[in-house]
This record gives sequence, structure tokens and C-alpha cells, in this order.
Amino acid sequence: MRKGLVIVNTGNGKGKTTAALGVLFRAWGRGMNVAVIQFIKHATGNWGEIKAAKKLQIDWQAMGDGFTWLSKDLDATAQKTRDAWALAQAKIASGQFDIVILDEMTYALKYGWIDVHEVIAWLNEHKPPQLHLIITGRDAPPELIAFADLVTEMREIKHPYTQGIKAQPGVEF
Amino acid sequence: MRKGLVIVNTGNGKGKTTAALGVLFRAWGRGMNVAVIQFIKHATGNWGEIKAAKKLQIDWQAMGDGFTWLSKDLDATAQKTRDAWALAQAKIASGQFDIVILDEMTYALKYGWIDVHEVIAWLNEHKPPQLHLIITGRDAPPELIAFADLVTEMREIKHPYTQGIKAQPGVEF
Repeated sequence: MRKGLVIVNTGNGKGKTTAALGVLFRAWGRGMNVAVIQFIKHATGNWGEIKAAKKLQIDWQAMGDGFTWLSKDLDATAQKTRDAWALAQAKIASGQFDIVILDEMTYALKYGWIDVHEVIAWLNEHKPPQLHLIITGRDAPPELIAFADLVTEMREIKHPYTQGIKAQPGVEF
Repeated sequence: MRKGLVIVNTGNGKGKTTAALGVLFRAWGRGMNVAVIQFIKHATGNWGEIKAAKKLQIDWQAMGDGFTWLSKDLDATAQKTRDAWALAQAKIASGQFDIVILDEMTYALKYGWIDVHEVIAWLNEHKPPQLHLIITGRDAPPELIAFADLVTEMREIKHPYTQGIKAQPGVEF
């Protein structure tokens, strides 16, 4: 039985986005079509994963402005996440993809920039039954967890930042 | 500062191997050399990740015999994991890799087929300082967690198997 799953990777630990990239790698190996939409990461970021996606011609859109707790213009950030969701809706409804990854979308839900109930209602109506959807980010709202088929919490047990070790290229970005 | 991290992905949830594959994808995007050694998965498995690794000519060795709780010849399984560790030592010490992934190695440690103290002593002496090492699997022993720089627990919050939905190609294998 082939069934499109709604997958949520949440929690305060590493591996939420990275596990979504692992699914992308695995699915690409099977010749499946994957689209990635990043809600927070900046369009000009030249991370390892973006380099890889370019080399493999994977559909990848970074729509964010690099929002952090230092951001000043939250209205602009909020609008960018709404634009990302509009693009996600187009990709999901297009029927062209086997897997769509909505990276760091939970932040937009958490801050109310996108309404979680509207997202779920839209997905119920428009998500193709066989499409797998992966949503990542901390603090996934309970409504999303209730809606999802597969939810994993990535929990931080030990982190090198606390030992003064900086993020390492290739591993973390 | 570039420092080779020892990374452990453990816990009962999804995403331990998958997050390691995501690091592989990211590192491949940066042109880094990655080796994967699978301690449990069967050499003849033709999973999506193996198809992807072949296409990208990534160094990938599945050394296991598909061990499960139904396995009958545990001596043979144990020997296969020791062979995998011998190969891992050769790859790690070769200096040819930026990242080495030891997939599902924790099971061999848990069952005592490979001694965790010997592994740590060997790594302390032979792991190149800049090499990143990723070890995955449930029940990572406390000694390994103490030794690692970055440890994440993947916790199962919700799983589709419990709803009678089977594992999906591209997503889970």
C-alpha cells in the first residue's frame, strides 16, 4: 500500500532538517521527484545542501530572510513565510512531486504568521493522496502533531556548542 | 575552528540513519569525502540510499546480514559486525575521508560483539582530528555518549505502523 505520509520532525535537537535531507537523498536514489521550500533560511545562503541540490537539479526554494530572535522587521519576515506557503501550495497541488519538504515551517505556525487550522483544512482538500509531506522545525503545534502520520522529536542530549566548539561545515550547514 | 566531531544519533524514533544521510548529502554538496559502513543492513539490500550512493559514487559498504530478533546464527552476525569495525578502522585511519558514518553500530556495542572501551581507546589514538564520525542506532551505551561531542535522541512521538500503514519506499528505505 502506497500512502502519502505527513511527517513532522520537531524538538530542540539536531537532525530535523538533516533527516528531511536524508529522505530527499533516499528518494532521489529511487528517481522520485522532491521539492524543498525553506521558510526561514535566506535565499542567498550557500550551504552544503544547496550546493548538493543544485548539482542534482533538485527543486529547491529558500524563501526566508534568515529570521532570528535578532530580526527587526517581523512583518517582512511574516510575509516571506506566507509567500513560502503560497509557493508550497502550488507545488503540492501541482501533482508533479512525490515528496515536498517544508523546512522550518513550524516557526511560522508558532508565531501565527500562518494559521495552522487553515493549513490542515487546505491539506485535507488539496494534498494528493500519494504525496509525502515533511514539515520541520521546533515547537510543532499540537494541531499539526494530531494531523500528522509520523512525528519524531529530536532531543538534544549533548551539544558541542556548550563546549565552545563552533558549527562545522558539511556537518551542520 | 575546524574540529572533527563524534556524533551519535540514538533513540527509538525515526531519523537516526536518515539524519546521517542528510549530513552525507550536505557534505557531498561541499565536495567532501564520505564513507558509509553499515553494520547490520544486508549487503544485497537495494534501498533508495544505496541506489543514490551508487549514482554519486559514494564509498558505501553494507556489511551486515540483516540481523533481527528472528536471527538464528548470532555468531555469524557478531562476526560480520566485527568485520565491519575492522573495515571502519581502515577507513578512519586512512586519512582519505572527511566524514565516516558507522550505521547501526550501536547494536554491536549493546550485544558486546564489539567492546565499547576498545572502540573509544582506538578512536582516541587513531581518529584524525578533523574527521567527523557519525554513529547511529538505538541504545547507544553511556560510555559512547560520554565520549561523543554531539548526541541526539530521536524520540518516537507518533508512528504510522501503529495505524496499520506500511513502510513507504523513498521515505523509509
